[in-house]
Amino acid sequence: MIGTGPEGHTFPGATVPFGMVQLSPDTQIRPFKQSYKWAAGYRYEDTTILGFSHTHFSGAGHSDLGDFLVQPIAGDVRLEPGEIDTPGSGYRSRFHHETEKAEPGYYAVTLDDYAVRAELTATTRVGVHRYTFPADKTAHLLLDMRSSIYNYTGKVLWSSIRLRADGTVTGMRETRGWAPARQLYFAMRFSQPLAGHELYDREPLPQEYKGFATPGTSPADTQAIMGRGLIGVFDFGELEQPLVVKVAISPVSEDGAIANLDAEVSGFDFDAVREQARQAWEKELSVVDIKADPAMRKSLYTALYHALMAPSVAMDEDGRYRGPDYQVHKAEGFNFVSAFSLWDTYRAEQPLMTLIEPPSRTTDVVRSLLVSQKESPFGILPIWQFQGLETWCMIGYHAVPEIADAYMKGVGNFDAKEALDAMVASATYAPYGHLGEYMKLGYVPVDNDGEAASKTVEYAFDDWTISRMARKLGRMDVADTFEKRAENWRNVFNTQTGFLQPKKADGSFREPFDPAQAGAQSGFTEGNSWQYSWYQPQDEAGLIRLLGGDQKLVDKLDAMFDAKVDPKRYADVEDIAGMIGQYIHGNEPSHHLAYLYDYAGQPWRSQERLKQIVDSQYRPAPDGLVGNDDLGQMSAWLLFTAFGFYPVAPGTNEYVIGRPFVEEATLHLPNGKQFHMVTDNLSGTNRYVGKVMLNGKPLTRSYLRHEEIMAGGELHFVMSAVPNKTWATSPEARPFSQSIADKAGESR
Amino acid sequence: MIGTGPEGHTFPGATVPFGMVQLSPDTQIRPFKQSYKWAAGYRYEDTTILGFSHTHFSGAGHSDLGDFLVQPIAGDVRLEPGEIDTPGSGYRSRFHHETEKAEPGYYAVTLDDYAVRAELTATTRVGVHRYTFPADKTAHLLLDMRSSIYNYTGKVLWSSIRLRADGTVTGMRETRGWAPARQLYFAMRFSQPLAGHELYDREPLPQEYKGFATPGTSPADTQAIMGRGLIGVFDFGELEQPLVVKVAISPVSEDGAIANLDAEVSGFDFDAVREQARQAWEKELSVVDIKADPAMRKSLYTALYHALMAPSVAMDEDGRYRGPDYQVHKAEGFNFVSAFSLWDTYRAEQPLMTLIEPPSRTTDVVRSLLVSQKESPFGILPIWQFQGLETWCMIGYHAVPEIADAYMKGVGNFDAKEALDAMVASATYAPYGHLGEYMKLGYVPVDNDGEAASKTVEYAFDDWTISRMARKLGRMDVADTFEKRAENWRNVFNTQTGFLQPKKADGSFREPFDPAQAGAQSGFTEGNSWQYSWYQPQDEAGLIRLLGGDQKLVDKLDAMFDAKVDPKRYADVEDIAGMIGQYIHGNEPSHHLAYLYDYAGQPWRSQERLKQIVDSQYRPAPDGLVGNDDLGQMSAWLLFTAFGFYPVAPGTNEYVIGRPFVEEATLHLPNGKQFHMVTDNLSGTNRYVGKVMLNGKPLTRSYLRHEEIMAGGELHFVMSAVPNKTWATSPEARPFSQSIADKAGESR
Repeated sequence: MIGTGPEGHTFPGATVPFGMVQLSPDTQIRPFKQSYKWAAGYRYEDTTILGFSHTHFSGAGHSDLGDFLVQPIAGDVRLEPGEIDTPGSGYRSRFHHETEKAEPGYYAVTLDDYAVRAELTATTRVGVHRYTFPADKTAHLLLDMRSSIYNYTGKVLWSSIRLRADGTVTGMRETRGWAPARQLYFAMRFSQPLAGHELYDREPLPQEYKGFATPGTSPADTQAIMGRGLIGVFDFGELEQPLVVKVAISPVSEDGAIANLDAEVSGFDFDAVREQARQAWEKELSVVDIKADPAMRKSLYTALYHALMAPSVAMDEDGRYRGPDYQVHKAEGFNFVSAFSLWDTYRAEQPLMTLIEPPSRTTDVVRSLLVSQKESPFGILPIWQFQGLETWCMIGYHAVPEIADAYMKGVGNFDAKEALDAMVASATYAPYGHLGEYMKLGYVPVDNDGEAASKTVEYAFDDWTISRMARKLGRMDVADTFEKRAENWRNVFNTQTGFLQPKKADGSFREPFDPAQAGAQSGFTEGNSWQYSWYQPQDEAGLIRLLGGDQKLVDKLDAMFDAKVDPKRYADVEDIAGMIGQYIHGNEPSHHLAYLYDYAGQPWRSQERLKQIVDSQYRPAPDGLVGNDDLGQMSAWLLFTAFGFYPVAPGTNEYVIGRPFVEEATLHLPNGKQFHMVTDNLSGTNRYVGKVMLNGKPLTRSYLRHEEIMAGGELHFVMSAVPNKTWATSPEARPFSQSIADKAGESR
Repeated sequence: MIGTGPEGHTFPGATVPFGMVQLSPDTQIRPFKQSYKWAAGYRYEDTTILGFSHTHFSGAGHSDLGDFLVQPIAGDVRLEPGEIDTPGSGYRSRFHHETEKAEPGYYAVTLDDYAVRAELTATTRVGVHRYTFPADKTAHLLLDMRSSIYNYTGKVLWSSIRLRADGTVTGMRETRGWAPARQLYFAMRFSQPLAGHELYDREPLPQEYKGFATPGTSPADTQAIMGRGLIGVFDFGELEQPLVVKVAISPVSEDGAIANLDAEVSGFDFDAVREQARQAWEKELSVVDIKADPAMRKSLYTALYHALMAPSVAMDEDGRYRGPDYQVHKAEGFNFVSAFSLWDTYRAEQPLMTLIEPPSRTTDVVRSLLVSQKESPFGILPIWQFQGLETWCMIGYHAVPEIADAYMKGVGNFDAKEALDAMVASATYAPYGHLGEYMKLGYVPVDNDGEAASKTVEYAFDDWTISRMARKLGRMDVADTFEKRAENWRNVFNTQTGFLQPKKADGSFREPFDPAQAGAQSGFTEGNSWQYSWYQPQDEAGLIRLLGGDQKLVDKLDAMFDAKVDPKRYADVEDIAGMIGQYIHGNEPSHHLAYLYDYAGQPWRSQERLKQIVDSQYRPAPDGLVGNDDLGQMSAWLLFTAFGFYPVAPGTNEYVIGRPFVEEATLHLPNGKQFHMVTDNLSGTNRYVGKVMLNGKPLTRSYLRHEEIMAGGELHFVMSAVPNKTWATSPEARPFSQSIADKAGESR
């Protein structure tokens, strides 16, 4: 249940690892302005359940989905959800948390208004429901095709429900939500014979629209319905047995959904499906053995659970999927996955996958990105894509660092030359995100772009990963071009103020400047200059030189962490949550910041800050995430951090060493080897790393290389109450920075 | 231009035989209640042109299509069509008929408001436009994605326009019209370089809908647009050359449209495409050489032109099409065609195709029907299908007689057993058209069906064609079942009144009964008992026996033709037009009636009535069709009738002899043979057939067999001022009737 409270935006329902179905209760459906809070459909503080729908994002900052909401109803059927405060005014039911049971792959709750016990489980593409009705009431299942997470009149562009001769119910809907014109299909079967059915269109039809057939004389009137306000009610009479309902979804077609249903769930054995889901999770969660304080252990395994949900499968069992061009394609040799929250996940979530998941997982991710680029109407890699469709959400072209990270690590099976071409195409497509001006000026001018400064530094990092990959591939022209572009962060860094500042097209910085200004037109994305000024993961040494030395960066970071901020100041800016001074743990631009003291040769200061963050920002409770989990990124941050290292700059193959929060952890690596992490003297007072040993030998630098972990071995921390101010302080002991690497002529 | 006036509903624009594109001017776009009159988009009496759209029905009684309306604009661009009475209030332009030129495959008009000469031509899947702009005004092309024939707010469910990097404009729209959720795609290219473009969404967006990307920063904002109220404007500056625009359509995808464009029109040579279209029509229209009075000759060749439009191609050049299940399929070994106005065309239009077109045409028709049955959500053959989608319009299952007619004639290449199964599936699917009650009671009860009597007799005829085909295939069980069902017309014939009457489920006829009652709930479809009582094409002899003898039928027919009817009585009933007493030539239930005198042994009376009809109902002028051409049926009636025979009962392989209206006609049969029709003494006063000879020998019966025509030869009529009351009067000389065939033990 971690994250189902305030703004974690996780859902409590049933899914399997990377499953296409996330079957979960929806407690409220909100219009756009309130949709942020109900992005997962469910909020822990709610008291009624509308029903159970089949698709959810885990921890997203925006909302959509909630497809195919099903509600069991005992007794009289109401067709509208009704008011929360008026029990019986609609089909929603009250519930109590005491009746809830949420396990990986299983969720159960009692719907008080109907005295119905509802249980959910899932396979990859099928949601399986078991409803135990009171024996003396008629049992019904309501399917509300209008219901959506984030709703408004007109969101459903088209929908249909059809009862087939064999009793299978199929249908589709096309919605105008976060992604435009998204189509999803379903196929539904019941364990009990159908006693009756009713199909309704609740949308008042335009006066000028009229069907042409005599009502009641075409099968389209009795066996099927099309429209924009559809409800189906399926009647079962009084039931002595529980009703098992299985619902497959498909991005392709009704027949695709039926094939998915047939392939994944043959009978109506709910317990067998539940056990299969449990085993799938057991296997995935066993990738690491953790010994830690019980609260931390609970937080970590839940984090791992949340890290293993997205990008989720977005294709039928035969490999067919709907691509960014809305057409049906077939994935050959990989699984097409989607729900790419790339602005978040390139940082730690996807790098974590390269460590703990088989390489095929990275193959799926990279090849899904690559085919999406080919099928994109604009020929560019996904930005924020789900179910194959682009939302244009957030900034940057962060599919690029995910691919570069995989390539530099040698993980995954894909054509690197083709990948580099796709990356370059994305980084040079002028109509996207003022890239034309960025390429011309060396920065995105703020004149017409309220996120100009953030874009400039994120583009520069992405560009640097292209240069890394191009150099390794021997494409020196590309490498040189993009290594030069990687320096563009300097163009928006004002050495006078020591801050990143929005710059105008005429070359002047915009005045007045307040590093604390956030929100629309601030020049920054979900943050301000306090967080963004230190975003040069490819060259923090360059930043230090610009600032005037190590201590200057340390002072800046301290000023950020220790700033006094009126907690109400950012109340109207979404995604600013979990503040420590001007550090915002609830959002991604801060995620690397605590590790930057390492780059200034003061790793003990990173160690302090990490304890400060972990203690204040995570706990194993519904409100245990301070911000959106962001499809695993918040969770991946905790996992890496607890193990003692974090991938500050994907593409370097380095993990920057912080400090561990586990007594022991063993990673069962996909290559069959094991990497042990052992911590001596872990306690609340021993805040510092006294000593670090890799495979029994002292490690004198503040980073680990990916290859060192993959080789198997042991990382041994000895904690201490006092800082070790001599460890890893020299420039050579610090993590990668491009300008130091250039100086050293090295290419590590 | 014949039929572009009043209610002919033909369009004057450019198309090729059975082409997917019908590129034609639209003069008004009307809401549903007025849409009947503007079913072809154009009405001759209108004075302004909105633009030129790419899809039209020829002569339909309902409306839809008008996809992708393009209007050339010289000077200032207005985004709304504006008012007819206020020149310059919108993008519509005045025009004069003197500037129009309409030829097969070519249409031209001058748009007065812009001084633009507009010329249109087409290939199967591409509309080619040539616009000559005044040299001193800027040239623009407006694409109004909202525009539809029969329009209302909300008709466009979704649409998109995209400007591709290579200058191709592509897009799609999905509409809720006559067919629900119909998708159509386009690809457009210009002969002149684009100087600019603007994309608009004119639909006020729901307040709660909001995009998530920063406006102007995603390519979706500048290079493409999605929504429900889209307009694209394409700017060309001042042009010295004409602008040629080519627009391909596809039911499958934008890429499909591009492939169609590439396959069919390589450059921008308008005149070459026009010449190609002209030749295609020349070839098709040369199938018959006609010598006749000039007015009749014009009417006949235009009728032939109109008969060669539908069912039109509905697949991409690679064979892919969108089926009744909305999925993409591929036609293998045939062309997928659609626009099946089956209630009309089974009578004479499709039988005409079996005579004059190569067998592959019938293959296309039958196999398109058969794959549609397989892909139908309900497993039945099309009723009124266009672009692969079902509208449930009109009654009966008249794909059945079209298939049976083809099979009995041995025309077309299809699997007869599979076809019979599809026919039986359609005729036994209980949820369609009260077929469940029909099968139980032997008639459709009027209690819940306002068209019950019409349905009963049409089902019975369709059933008879199944029995014919089943018997020939050796499926005796099916033959017996359906031969019995073919008798069901008797169950709604009231021998007390001598009329077909709506019967209730309790077995009693509904009272009161007025054979002149038409319209909703009358029990009849677009007609009344005066026309429907004599609809037993499979057994008119049975009717005669029920009535009490030949003269009784003759008296009934005379009473129908000679009835005094207040012309205002049916003003509110659509499709009742072209009345001669209670005979309604403008609608199909009357089309066989003039030939029924032959069945009563009085062929001279048929001859009289045919002259009465032809003289009053056809003329070579815009108002020269008294009713909707109905995708060729009105035209096919005239062609057959003018040749001297008509297929009263498809499935018999017989054509009932009337009288000719041509001096000579030579059918160039698809088997390479020729069938000559020669008429001696043709004149206004020689109303009767004095003598008929087939291949030089007197023909003593009032019907021809299909095989006799296909063998080639000569049919020689000698007209006379006095009736020949001895010719073809005996029972044996009359056309087929099942009860006589039964009696005779014959199976002709």
